[in-house]
Amino acid sequence: AGELWRARWGESSQSGAMVTATSIMRVQQLLLGEFDAIAGRHGLTFARYEALVLLAFSREGRLSMGRIGERLMVHPTSATHIVQRLAAQGFVDRVANPDDRRGALAVITDTGREAMEATTADLEAAQFGLGMLSSEDQGRLFSLLRDVRVAADDFVEDPGTGGR
Amino acid sequence: AGELWRARWGESSQSGAMVTATSIMRVQQLLLGEFDAIAGRHGLTFARYEALVLLAFSREGRLSMGRIGERLMVHPTSATHIVQRLAAQGFVDRVANPDDRRGALAVITDTGREAMEATTADLEAAQFGLGMLSSEDQGRLFSLLRDVRVAADDFVEDPGTGGR
Repeated sequence: AGELWRARWGESSQSGAMVTATSIMRVQQLLLGEFDAIAGRHGLTFARYEALVLLAFSREGRLSMGRIGERLMVHPTSATHIVQRLAAQGFVDRVANPDDRRGALAVITDTGREAMEATTADLEAAQFGLGMLSSEDQGRLFSLLRDVRVAADDFVEDPGTGGR
Repeated sequence: AGELWRARWGESSQSGAMVTATSIMRVQQLLLGEFDAIAGRHGLTFARYEALVLLAFSREGRLSMGRIGERLMVHPTSATHIVQRLAAQGFVDRVANPDDRRGALAVITDTGREAMEATTADLEAAQFGLGMLSSEDQGRLFSLLRDVRVAADDFVEDPGTGGR
């Protein structure tokens, strides 16, 4: 692999950066497609599943739209849309936010927690789409990506909740 | 890095796969945010820039909506929307498709090519968001991601055009 890389790109780090960035984008698309299909079995999309994970692991099982958007790195409008869909499905309840009269908090329900856990179990069975990599290679990949996240000030100790 | 990994996850490859998949998603979000900002300087989004790259490197500078969607791995509706925006900006022309009376082909214009090249130059100057990694680490990252793409039958020899 490294040989092909060098043969192709030599010392040109620009081209190397381009194809590496392109690869990150492609692999994210591939994983997202797979994760959406798995979440779909439980009435979810991966984005809605991520919101449920976030709520399930928040201190009181409840978060504001702004906080959800921030943690998931999506626009507040998208966060609101995600929560509306989850509320229509009975996976979250919306309650008044004591700290913000105009805002609402999303609270995960028992059925939301069940859908989240069933999706997690299926994602684990699918090895999160990375079963073709050895455990060691997964560790190497994680470590390289962590360097990117640390440089962007994104790395967090608590995995899975997507917080910063 | 590897030590922290082992200390945290031990032999549990499931958790390792989860945090690695999460990291791929996060890094893609970080890069996309940076690339959208760079493309924005030239009136583009990264998605529209990708469509222009695809057209610029296609044999005759022209592709059908279906083909664009397929290559970019987006829904045909999204491909149509992207091309509509590019056409409104004068970056592509729409011409009749000789092979499909109901369909149209997108053709990149000279100003489209200029915007694409200016964006590429800025992305290269920004080292495609991966300047914190050495050239060797970029190669390692590319190689690990290639294993994922090969398993998904996605790997292509010609980088940048996003074909399959």
